[in-house]
Amino acid sequence: MEGNYLPVHEARIPILDQGFLHSDLTYDVPAVWDGRFFRLDDHLDRFEASCARLRLKSPIDRAEMRSRLIEMTAMSGIRDAYVMMIVTRGLRYIRQYAPDECENFCYLMVTPFLWVMDEATQKQGGSAIIARSVRRIPPGAIDPTVKNLQWGDFTRGILEARDRGAMYPILTDGDGNITEGSGFNVVLVKDRKLFTARKGVLEGVTRKTVFEIAATLGLEIHLDDVPVDLAYRCDELFFATTAGGIMPITELDAKPVGAGKVGPITKTIWKGYWDAHSDPKYSFGINYY
Amino acid sequence: MEGNYLPVHEARIPILDQGFLHSDLTYDVPAVWDGRFFRLDDHLDRFEASCARLRLKSPIDRAEMRSRLIEMTAMSGIRDAYVMMIVTRGLRYIRQYAPDECENFCYLMVTPFLWVMDEATQKQGGSAIIARSVRRIPPGAIDPTVKNLQWGDFTRGILEARDRGAMYPILTDGDGNITEGSGFNVVLVKDRKLFTARKGVLEGVTRKTVFEIAATLGLEIHLDDVPVDLAYRCDELFFATTAGGIMPITELDAKPVGAGKVGPITKTIWKGYWDAHSDPKYSFGINYY
Repeated sequence: MEGNYLPVHEARIPILDQGFLHSDLTYDVPAVWDGRFFRLDDHLDRFEASCARLRLKSPIDRAEMRSRLIEMTAMSGIRDAYVMMIVTRGLRYIRQYAPDECENFCYLMVTPFLWVMDEATQKQGGSAIIARSVRRIPPGAIDPTVKNLQWGDFTRGILEARDRGAMYPILTDGDGNITEGSGFNVVLVKDRKLFTARKGVLEGVTRKTVFEIAATLGLEIHLDDVPVDLAYRCDELFFATTAGGIMPITELDAKPVGAGKVGPITKTIWKGYWDAHSDPKYSFGINYY
Repeated sequence: MEGNYLPVHEARIPILDQGFLHSDLTYDVPAVWDGRFFRLDDHLDRFEASCARLRLKSPIDRAEMRSRLIEMTAMSGIRDAYVMMIVTRGLRYIRQYAPDECENFCYLMVTPFLWVMDEATQKQGGSAIIARSVRRIPPGAIDPTVKNLQWGDFTRGILEARDRGAMYPILTDGDGNITEGSGFNVVLVKDRKLFTARKGVLEGVTRKTVFEIAATLGLEIHLDDVPVDLAYRCDELFFATTAGGIMPITELDAKPVGAGKVGPITKTIWKGYWDAHSDPKYSFGINYY
């Protein structure tokens, strides 16, 4: 914060930061697992692209951000970490100032790894609903490939899931297709083929890893519109996100998904995903102090 | 902030506040004009409704919030003020905690009056575009009647307006109808009738005042879908918002609106709106220290 390292519970941002006052920001969240940064450069690539789309410019460049993130993680001593980089518009508002006249702010944060689905639930599978009371924000309004914190639709979805006794919401595009859930991509498995939404969703780094694992297994990937109907007749269903990895879903709208158990393809991809975390192709070790 | 009054440039919020981390909050902004609070209770009514919709509960009740806002304004000495009340989810995230287990936070702020359109431009009229590159978030995704700071679509609209050499964007609903712009309702005047969007927009307090003034003038109000086409063939066009009042628009997509001058109905409503600020029916005086 303003050049200093602080315990996260002491970290404060100006109330006048447009990142708060208009959620005018982008962010990204690589993970550290067992003392190794996983796909850090993929997250930095996406973060740079997000900043460019919003005409944001980090006050520290990519190389410095990268070394600071590694340094902060090493300092923290946390071996399984959730690492957050945020660039906000700063104190000036773009109605009054051109983007290049705004001094943007950067906040970096290292916290313990965050499980969207706890480890016990990952073994038996979680429950989800397809939200009826809310649809996903369309990409023509807010571009979901630019990672953002405007979670109004997801928040409504989470409340609906709670009300219906389930853990997670899946949102549709309002035209009968599945998009994503509150912080994760949605992947269906049917007849040994993977189906996941091409548009209206984040281009997840975890999802990218899933595609790479699927390719080595010879599984076909359908990156296209995914009709809602398919979710009710698929064999397996899982979510993919950095904050939790591969999250099997065995109950949808209070009915079993496929056989109602974590399926064989989900299990194989789950294992491949966590194995990748120690693979030097994807990860590198941190020198802790 | 945490029970204390601070100069606004020193005010900081926790980076872990879900109001920042997921824009999980609502807010409202009454104005003070010439030492008088304008329609404060209407703003408090809407704010209470917004909180209820999001299952947020302010840590201070309505009566205390009201008296604090008056006290803060009196302390500030600001006679033309923009007064902001914000309730955020707080430090707990509703994926992990039920809404009633989250301690919500309240932030109150008094700053000098904010002009979305400066006073000189109000005399001659401003310029606007109908955005082509972005649509308004649909109410099925985020409910615009619950005042929120998820401005991603408006931010894109503002950037498009800048790129096209205009001051303000008007967003459509993606189905050929006009919704609202970046922080204001849009009102068209055609054949002495007023047209403004019924849904997909904030139910503005300023717009409500416009309706009341229009009724006294015997002008018909059409609160309905407003086809984009009508904006290009209307007689007059203006925006309505607390932060700027009645803002005449005399140029749309680089062409004159009607006669290209601030029209007679806009002028009459503009005057009625500012006159209302000294009317005890709508406003009350503050006892400054």
